[in-house]
Amino acid sequence: MENKLLEAMKFRHAAKEFDTTKSIDEETFNQILEAGRLSPSSFGLEHTKFIVVENPELKEKLQEASYNQKQVTTASQVVIILSRIKDVMSNSVYAKELFESRMPKEASEFLINFHGSFTQNFSEDEISQWSKKQAYISAANMMTMAAYLGADSCPMEGFVESQVQEILGIDPKEYGVAMVLPFGYRNQEPRPKTRHELKEIVEFRK
Amino acid sequence: MENKLLEAMKFRHAAKEFDTTKSIDEETFNQILEAGRLSPSSFGLEHTKFIVVENPELKEKLQEASYNQKQVTTASQVVIILSRIKDVMSNSVYAKELFESRMPKEASEFLINFHGSFTQNFSEDEISQWSKKQAYISAANMMTMAAYLGADSCPMEGFVESQVQEILGIDPKEYGVAMVLPFGYRNQEPRPKTRHELKEIVEFRK
Repeated sequence: MENKLLEAMKFRHAAKEFDTTKSIDEETFNQILEAGRLSPSSFGLEHTKFIVVENPELKEKLQEASYNQKQVTTASQVVIILSRIKDVMSNSVYAKELFESRMPKEASEFLINFHGSFTQNFSEDEISQWSKKQAYISAANMMTMAAYLGADSCPMEGFVESQVQEILGIDPKEYGVAMVLPFGYRNQEPRPKTRHELKEIVEFRK
Repeated sequence: MENKLLEAMKFRHAAKEFDTTKSIDEETFNQILEAGRLSPSSFGLEHTKFIVVENPELKEKLQEASYNQKQVTTASQVVIILSRIKDVMSNSVYAKELFESRMPKEASEFLINFHGSFTQNFSEDEISQWSKKQAYISAANMMTMAAYLGADSCPMEGFVESQVQEILGIDPKEYGVAMVLPFGYRNQEPRPKTRHELKEIVEFRK
């Protein structure tokens, strides 16, 4: 039995450089964004926002802030994945309004209290880390969708967060930068994928 | 144009309880594990391991450690997603051996040094947070694969990490618990999915 999604996951690799003669078209890219949008998040707070950089001068600056990794300027779209900080803190206006807009009063009151107590002892850094973890779920789904549609990506953690925030005019109290995620088409075939075997990383308790 | 993966992402929801008359069969569950195994990780360090709990008594104990959420005992498989700590620290034996086994000497030496300098100023907690973020990528891909195959899941952060470690005999210096992730089949249809519109969460810089 063929499983096209498993094939896509085998096809996916971290492209170190993209083919600059190709661009991901709008219809394909829109489905990649949809994969990010539809992703789950803790309490359904939708922690994640996306800045899509297509502007060549901005890509140049972002590449400098990313240890000059060539993925950034050779990508057709560079997605900067932002993770909410202020919005997802205990008793934030954003959280209250989101819960109230999405469910009946009784359920929203329960979630406002539950989220409030879950996060009330989090430091600002813990809030930021928690939010970034949610962003990684969106990132994973966007990379998987890209591969499913025959496109490529490269998840990047090697960037100076404060520089990326400054380049894009992001208030560091409002949003962290969880990942720099360029998309495009590979310019060469990767070496064969290497992974632990399942039996090395899975343990059953039957 | 139909996109079966996008349909799967719309089908996926956080199941609050599973149908206890149904079980995910071995072939399907194996593909879910494969999705976790094939996921990317920082430096390709494969930060993530999986304990699959099928034993009813263990599920009971895990449910108690998870604020008594019914997903745990009603799931056919509960995956405890572990994130490596000691293994992924600066200059660990695990990292050195992994790099050396996967690539030529020059490339492995470069990565050993790069990983070493990237992580050398991380506290143990920062290592753990970094590792958990990688685990969220695997979790996302496993949930997506489950949905693609018509199965359900529920990403859970509401658990007492130290209790889960104790129940499963996990050394907290070796592994964090990134997520409790039960799988099964939904026992009722969810309310319609609510999300921000794309234009509310995406900004283009052209």
